[in-house]
Amino acid sequence: MVPIGIVGFSGYSGAELVSLLARHPHAEPVLLEHREAAEHPRPLGYEGPRRLPCSADSVRSAGLAAVFLATPPEVSMELAGPMLNAGAKVIDLSGAFRLGSAENYQHWYKEPHTQPQLLNEAVYGLPEFCRARVAAARLISNPGCYPTAANLAIKPLLEAGAIAREFGIVCDAKSGVSGAGRKASLKTSFCEVTENFSAYSMFDHRHVPEVLRTSGLEEGEFSFTAQLIPIHRGILETIYFRATEQLSSAEDLLAIYHGRYASEPFVRLYSSGQVPDVQAVAHTNFCDIGFKYDSKTRRAVVVSVIDNLGKGAAGQAIQNMNLALGYPETAGLL
Amino acid sequence: MVPIGIVGFSGYSGAELVSLLARHPHAEPVLLEHREAAEHPRPLGYEGPRRLPCSADSVRSAGLAAVFLATPPEVSMELAGPMLNAGAKVIDLSGAFRLGSAENYQHWYKEPHTQPQLLNEAVYGLPEFCRARVAAARLISNPGCYPTAANLAIKPLLEAGAIAREFGIVCDAKSGVSGAGRKASLKTSFCEVTENFSAYSMFDHRHVPEVLRTSGLEEGEFSFTAQLIPIHRGILETIYFRATEQLSSAEDLLAIYHGRYASEPFVRLYSSGQVPDVQAVAHTNFCDIGFKYDSKTRRAVVVSVIDNLGKGAAGQAIQNMNLALGYPETAGLL
Amino acid sequence: MVPIGIVGFSGYSGAELVSLLARHPHAEPVLLEHREAAEHPRPLGYEGPRRLPCSADSVRSAGLAAVFLATPPEVSMELAGPMLNAGAKVIDLSGAFRLGSAENYQHWYKEPHTQPQLLNEAVYGLPEFCRARVAAARLISNPGCYPTAANLAIKPLLEAGAIAREFGIVCDAKSGVSGAGRKASLKTSFCEVTENFSAYSMFDHRHVPEVLRTSGLEEGEFSFTAQLIPIHRGILETIYFRATEQLSSAEDLLAIYHGRYASEPFVRLYSSGQVPDVQAVAHTNFCDIGFKYDSKTRRAVVVSVIDNLGKGAAGQAIQNMNLALGYPETAGLL
Amino acid sequence: MVPIGIVGFSGYSGAELVSLLARHPHAEPVLLEHREAAEHPRPLGYEGPRRLPCSADSVRSAGLAAVFLATPPEVSMELAGPMLNAGAKVIDLSGAFRLGSAENYQHWYKEPHTQPQLLNEAVYGLPEFCRARVAAARLISNPGCYPTAANLAIKPLLEAGAIAREFGIVCDAKSGVSGAGRKASLKTSFCEVTENFSAYSMFDHRHVPEVLRTSGLEEGEFSFTAQLIPIHRGILETIYFRATEQLSSAEDLLAIYHGRYASEPFVRLYSSGQVPDVQAVAHTNFCDIGFKYDSKTRRAVVVSVIDNLGKGAAGQAIQNMNLALGYPETAGLL
Repeated sequence: MVPIGIVGFSGYSGAELVSLLARHPHAEPVLLEHREAAEHPRPLGYEGPRRLPCSADSVRSAGLAAVFLATPPEVSMELAGPMLNAGAKVIDLSGAFRLGSAENYQHWYKEPHTQPQLLNEAVYGLPEFCRARVAAARLISNPGCYPTAANLAIKPLLEAGAIAREFGIVCDAKSGVSGAGRKASLKTSFCEVTENFSAYSMFDHRHVPEVLRTSGLEEGEFSFTAQLIPIHRGILETIYFRATEQLSSAEDLLAIYHGRYASEPFVRLYSSGQVPDVQAVAHTNFCDIGFKYDSKTRRAVVVSVIDNLGKGAAGQAIQNMNLALGYPETAGLL
Repeated sequence: MVPIGIVGFSGYSGAELVSLLARHPHAEPVLLEHREAAEHPRPLGYEGPRRLPCSADSVRSAGLAAVFLATPPEVSMELAGPMLNAGAKVIDLSGAFRLGSAENYQHWYKEPHTQPQLLNEAVYGLPEFCRARVAAARLISNPGCYPTAANLAIKPLLEAGAIAREFGIVCDAKSGVSGAGRKASLKTSFCEVTENFSAYSMFDHRHVPEVLRTSGLEEGEFSFTAQLIPIHRGILETIYFRATEQLSSAEDLLAIYHGRYASEPFVRLYSSGQVPDVQAVAHTNFCDIGFKYDSKTRRAVVVSVIDNLGKGAAGQAIQNMNLALGYPETAGLL
Repeated sequence: MVPIGIVGFSGYSGAELVSLLARHPHAEPVLLEHREAAEHPRPLGYEGPRRLPCSADSVRSAGLAAVFLATPPEVSMELAGPMLNAGAKVIDLSGAFRLGSAENYQHWYKEPHTQPQLLNEAVYGLPEFCRARVAAARLISNPGCYPTAANLAIKPLLEAGAIAREFGIVCDAKSGVSGAGRKASLKTSFCEVTENFSAYSMFDHRHVPEVLRTSGLEEGEFSFTAQLIPIHRGILETIYFRATEQLSSAEDLLAIYHGRYASEPFVRLYSSGQVPDVQAVAHTNFCDIGFKYDSKTRRAVVVSVIDNLGKGAAGQAIQNMNLALGYPETAGLL
Repeated sequence: MVPIGIVGFSGYSGAELVSLLARHPHAEPVLLEHREAAEHPRPLGYEGPRRLPCSADSVRSAGLAAVFLATPPEVSMELAGPMLNAGAKVIDLSGAFRLGSAENYQHWYKEPHTQPQLLNEAVYGLPEFCRARVAAARLISNPGCYPTAANLAIKPLLEAGAIAREFGIVCDAKSGVSGAGRKASLKTSFCEVTENFSAYSMFDHRHVPEVLRTSGLEEGEFSFTAQLIPIHRGILETIYFRATEQLSSAEDLLAIYHGRYASEPFVRLYSSGQVPDVQAVAHTNFCDIGFKYDSKTRRAVVVSVIDNLGKGAAGQAIQNMNLALGYPETAGLL
């Protein structure tokens, strides 16, 4: 079994990585301790995976083939270089290396990028659209949860010229609370969230530039609102657009998706008019896509769902690791 | 205290009516028994309001000034006439009298309208836009929950010419589960709803024609999806549109709303960029409206929230009753 | 309207006090600002109650007849004396003045009591058992949520000699999350609580000595566990004991409760074998009590429910204020 | 892969069986169609396991080594005989064969037992206490969810003489809603359960006689209440008793458990004073046990948690299948 490091293992994405690696046929988790949040009590005799200090030395001495950074962007920027230099491939789950330029990062994350020299090398790990580059990468930037669900739904249609971009695309996004990370916070405390539903970011979410960069859309063409569902995990995005004359029927729309995703292991499609719910993908690495199309008025609505800790974070990170280390892409994920 | 009848008092809207009337300064509830669902056990000595059989005789003998029909449309069609003939004003919470014509009803409700002669008389009870007609009505058709939140958000902007209709309006609507009524159903059972979020109606919800009829929009201009939040009560609608050149700033948008609603007791506005959540209106008759406007791209998003059992059903029904019986409009509602 | 001060108005109990006072027929809330937690955004034009700095001067200048301290015990100890000296009655919702002696306080709260001279004066405000003393008090110590539900269920039976104390009483208590207060905390964050249920205090909860002091039980006779339900508000306690020969039937048990509570406005009883749930008392000041008794084996189980923010905190505090200021006991609470 | 039949696969326990078998190293699921409830929409191309009519012929033609009956007891009674005769081992998840005699069944299930001749043959499948008999059985009666958590917590202590039975044992049990099965029902509808907590069975739950039969306790010694938590899955039981002089310390209590369970793969223990919560065992086949003991007063509280669909139903059923078919006991369960 190949040892793989995890920094940030006490967070939600980190814990999901530990759990996925524990069942992986070729890899095993090693916990790299770095300012951990409180952990749950453990049963007697169940110690969990090996623990090491979070350092380049640990990477070398344990021979870690890869290291996951399930950490805030400022920590990822600090750790990525040393981990790479110690010989590990690095898969970063933060936004540190997603936006392509230090200027873009500073604009959306409101702090300077401390490792601009790594930005060129970082490969954006959305395997369905850049599989070969991921396989060859040393530093993989794991996509954000919202952009994953959005881009998988939008990109095939944009490429096929099926969306009338001048009318704009609306992406109304909803996420479970684990998307905010595991930390003490009044906004995500139980009583503030239960029996509630709220919009917390309109037009200006950090994930917007990720969608634009990957899809090629202009800012004015993409209206995005992020909202909080009182559930632990799961994302549902409801995406609205006007179709071009390319789409004369729902069958056309399904054919575009089918042509793009027929052999993809982690994207699933539904019959026209039938849409997936959050439970359809809970605890999986699938992105499920359904839609409805009104050919008379050319209005289309697409529903795209993922588990934000699965395809939206840890699952996709394992998928990227599989590609980067030469394992079967679905290993440990089905 | 003036006695007011309630048919369907064991449902969620019906129970809310009972509770609101029990605190009303001028009216008191009388329960009209008509195939009730199971009721909760009662403490000893807490019998609740007076009960009578659901009949025209009961209306006459008890001298009911008004009767609420918190019943399915087919029951409302059956009961409205006899109750009116017995001398009561009737406030119907179903969709039976909302769509203006028997054809329209049959198209959306998939069954014939049995009382077409009452359709002309029925007044659509959205007080903010037809207060005088409600005050004079015998038969009031209480608006649907989704259309209430949508029309209150959209109509002032449409009237002011602020929406570029050719780009279409998207209304992404989410509702708590009580909107589905109180009944045994697998779809609304706890385990199917908790830790889930689902779209259940895209473009073809029965509430769409209500919005069109009240707002004057064409079907092709209005894209509506209804979705289920795992909460008991509350509706949040996220509404997207492109603004016309009328709106050069967020202040313009707020000014339109303010001009229309400044003296409305049940519509509340927020500063530009600040939006209400579902809890802001829980257990109230308020509709709260916030928005964000990007003047550079003319994209706007409006968030409109109500309690689906408050302004979306029982609360608005009491507001209509207050108007129809000559009480202060806010009696029992603040 | 008589002005009443509230310290800690941004917490859950404090906000409930504000809301109850806003509907009170004789009193109105005044917010005393003292290190407030974040508040929710307000609609334009809805400013809320008057605000003053939290000081003895404010009490005097505004002529506050009473001040609620919805604050941690160390803050209550600091503020109670100055507020009393400024002429207000003080109703403290913390544990600062509940345990009768500085030693007892230090033992259970793990810090010294800074105002021992006030302990003698403080009256424990469980109106059903000390109505007259509350009416005459300057300083009222509002009971804890768990002890309120427990004592109301147990005391009548103990007084009647119906409980075989040598077998012990088990009180298995469950509370909604608002009982932990409004603050940033990992333990009460949404993802840690939803789809979970946990015991957090076995035998050693700070509320145990309150039950012992009020009921006269010995520590070894009372086994108490506190547990967290994934709901916002509500407490249910399941209480088990063996009956003495006094109880030959369920009717005997009901008769004891009925004899004690028949004229109490806020305690409600159920038929033998029928028990209330948390929803029965949500958003009310009621304590509902039901039970089952197996006369063959003398085993009894009593279910006692309250809203932890109602009869368990703010509701009971208003009830105590009504008594202390000479208003009808139920004013603003039905 | 050995084919295994599942009747009732659209229910919660049945679906869990399908999912566990799909990941099992030696077995694969075959769906036996028998009056199924509504199923969720499936993605295109994801057909799921093979389906056959529910009949003895299907068992023979497909060569099913075992059949799970995730059905109501009356259906299990009808199907068990034919399935056994067709050569399959039968693992029944209902209460049909748990109580040992037709009289006992009729008393608690309020209907006659139609297959009394099978009762003698049925082996109660709690592997920790009857592993050898399970391995040799043709017909295995899978334990109820509540009795599994209760017996695993109580039996070692009773066997060691550590419980003072004359004081009685209190078992305060709480379950997620999936324990009620997948069906349309008002009582388990979302709005009746969310923000609620309720006791639904005091002393007279059908699972009581299972605990008595397995533990050897008398009815008067065991007080059991079942309660509903607003979560999908999980059981937590809080168990109170007085210890005999055998237990002079918490270490003694832990030693008894450790002696009994040290080599059990699915029972986990915690340090004295530390107790597991429902999440500790979610989606697993573990039973986690923690406790607190007050040696001064001899009061003990034990917290026992399982996933009601895991160790409480499908997980334990797979464990029993593994034993009965000669697979490693943990196959497909870790």
